[in-house]
Amino acid sequence: MRIAVLGGDGFVGWPTCLHLSDLGHEVHIIDNLSRRWIDVELGVQSLTPMDSIQERCRIWYEVTGRKLHFHLLDIAKEYERLRGWLVEHRPDAIVHFAEQRAAPYSMKSDRHKVYTVNNNVNATHNLLAALVETGIDAHLVHLGTMGVYGYSSVGAAIPEGYLNVGVETMDGRVAQQEILYPTRPGSVYHMTKSLDQILFQFYAQNDGLRITDLHQGIVWGTHTEQTRRHVQLINRFDYDGDYGTVLNRFLIQAAIGYPLTVHGTGGQTRAFIHIKDSVRCIELALADAPAAGQRVKIFNQMTETHRVRDLAEMIATRAGAKVAYLPNPRKEAAENDLVVRNEQFLALGLKPTTLAEGLLDEIVDVARKYEHRIDRKRVPAVSAWTRELGQLVETDPERKRLRSVS
Amino acid sequence: MRIAVLGGDGFVGWPTCLHLSDLGHEVHIIDNLSRRWIDVELGVQSLTPMDSIQERCRIWYEVTGRKLHFHLLDIAKEYERLRGWLVEHRPDAIVHFAEQRAAPYSMKSDRHKVYTVNNNVNATHNLLAALVETGIDAHLVHLGTMGVYGYSSVGAAIPEGYLNVGVETMDGRVAQQEILYPTRPGSVYHMTKSLDQILFQFYAQNDGLRITDLHQGIVWGTHTEQTRRHVQLINRFDYDGDYGTVLNRFLIQAAIGYPLTVHGTGGQTRAFIHIKDSVRCIELALADAPAAGQRVKIFNQMTETHRVRDLAEMIATRAGAKVAYLPNPRKEAAENDLVVRNEQFLALGLKPTTLAEGLLDEIVDVARKYEHRIDRKRVPAVSAWTRELGQLVETDPERKRLRSVS
Repeated sequence: MRIAVLGGDGFVGWPTCLHLSDLGHEVHIIDNLSRRWIDVELGVQSLTPMDSIQERCRIWYEVTGRKLHFHLLDIAKEYERLRGWLVEHRPDAIVHFAEQRAAPYSMKSDRHKVYTVNNNVNATHNLLAALVETGIDAHLVHLGTMGVYGYSSVGAAIPEGYLNVGVETMDGRVAQQEILYPTRPGSVYHMTKSLDQILFQFYAQNDGLRITDLHQGIVWGTHTEQTRRHVQLINRFDYDGDYGTVLNRFLIQAAIGYPLTVHGTGGQTRAFIHIKDSVRCIELALADAPAAGQRVKIFNQMTETHRVRDLAEMIATRAGAKVAYLPNPRKEAAENDLVVRNEQFLALGLKPTTLAEGLLDEIVDVARKYEHRIDRKRVPAVSAWTRELGQLVETDPERKRLRSVS
Repeated sequence: MRIAVLGGDGFVGWPTCLHLSDLGHEVHIIDNLSRRWIDVELGVQSLTPMDSIQERCRIWYEVTGRKLHFHLLDIAKEYERLRGWLVEHRPDAIVHFAEQRAAPYSMKSDRHKVYTVNNNVNATHNLLAALVETGIDAHLVHLGTMGVYGYSSVGAAIPEGYLNVGVETMDGRVAQQEILYPTRPGSVYHMTKSLDQILFQFYAQNDGLRITDLHQGIVWGTHTEQTRRHVQLINRFDYDGDYGTVLNRFLIQAAIGYPLTVHGTGGQTRAFIHIKDSVRCIELALADAPAAGQRVKIFNQMTETHRVRDLAEMIATRAGAKVAYLPNPRKEAAENDLVVRNEQFLALGLKPTTLAEGLLDEIVDVARKYEHRIDRKRVPAVSAWTRELGQLVETDPERKRLRSVS
């Protein structure tokens, strides 16, 4: 297949490109390199030394003899060029990662909120409008997030996309209606993925676009089988307060002998998936396209759930570190349960890599190996969900104490 | 109160400004005048001769001694100026009409789809982000549409915004959960109003913004008490295939002795409200603001429902015209029921103007009075929801016959 990977230079995008190329597909990377610009803006960098996309593609060709085609294109801002590209290349499938993907970054300031909404909504909608206009019947696989549902569940398992509800009719019957499982996003970033869902529903219904939406958990892990093949193929590893996930920041704190900083009680339950499983899921989703006229196919792309404090304990034990509790800069439930259905990918043959088996590799192969590149000041989360929460975090005595000893 | 009316130069915006000014409020009109630019793009004009916004404001001052303050500002494109304006003027309330509001226009081409999404989502989100950033606790009243729910109901009445659903929990109980009444928008325009709902839900929850969302039916009628006070205060009347509502186009067809063109079977049921009631509803909504931390308050702003073919018959009978049936350029159910709850506005004191009593005024005072300004070629709907529907409409023999005799 000829596959366009939008956002193919990013954290999940890059290993996805290598995985699909390795399977023999013709892979085109479309990216505006915004993630690299944001590194520049924030003054942060990947823990792992990361080459330019052009250099990465060159190395992959040297190692495997397979070509990756890179196209610098901003799909949110350059609608006409995107449409022209589609007409010229006519991909069989499109994997869409091309959105700003960090919740804390989306909450940093009004400028970041405005950027995230403008960028993400236009990126997705431009793509949909261009597919309709060009008549290209490519299967679109989009990376969404489990976070659209929020984390205040009433104790029910989150199904894969849809819910049947009964509504009382005028003549007193109860009619069943299938709806998108209701979202309750907790950040501007998550909100944009909730908006995407509505765009997909409309274009599948009105124009018969074939769309798969992957509601992904927190992706952890650095290496896939392909990124291990050459040191210059290594994936990015973010540990800063905006782009570093809770897991990555714990790993870095453990590596530098700093206490693992848990926000609030650490009672937040989150869903996780290893990067190897993430790229495999995309392969599986591509092979299982819906037909034209079918509803959007929605998968929950995650393999296990953990409470944040349990995660901290798991890493602290393995790495010999301590755990510290700080005020939470996010507006969210202090404690929540999270049960997620993921039968679809398991039925398609996914064999999950668990945290219990994969964590030690991350500590040894990544965090300790690149410890000399860690900028300690970048680890704490600085983006607060509201001004009040920002003040609470800023004035917290435990945070001040940790800062003074670090 | 100091009230900012965003989109205050538009069809509902303008009479709203006059109504609120008449009640003694200090009214600021913020508008990018995009609706006038679209008239230029399409080569159409209001049936009623409409002056510039500056001239309209001058006349209102002459007639009443009350000032309307006009500010040329594009809230979708000029985030910084919008924020600056809010800081300078600190409104007590904001009425937000500033979105592209025609479904057929939003479906004309990929360019129009892209424009509508970009404009509407950024307009609404910029406003929300600016309110949070400036800390201005203004009550935001937004004009949404009944159309977000789609028109394929299972026979249940559409409640005012929310639905209680039962979900089965892990331990076998059924837990009740309140959700936004599920949307199923049928055009790109309607889709943007569905996206707005999610933006409102997030900002009310995260930042305590006080928001009222009015899900409006099709607005009909031209005059309000205030627009009648001077010929130059008259409201706009759109009858073209993109911005003219079904009712306006029927009125114009009747005035020129052309058959009333019904799309499909005319079995589509729609909700209606007179412009006088619309501006009164906005007054009532402004006086009934939710508290900070409350959920978004949602009203169904409509007073009656009719099937399109019944509407055609009603006008044909009064005006002595015929009815013709043409293929439907929209992708929608051929026939639908529509029952809408609107108890909230009735309880607040709304006294509806019915079509049965108001239609004749429109025929005599507007359609026949300005008949000499009608451009007959502009009445047929030309925007099709898909390419296939466009071809069906283009090649229809009845449509060809009507065109040849017109």
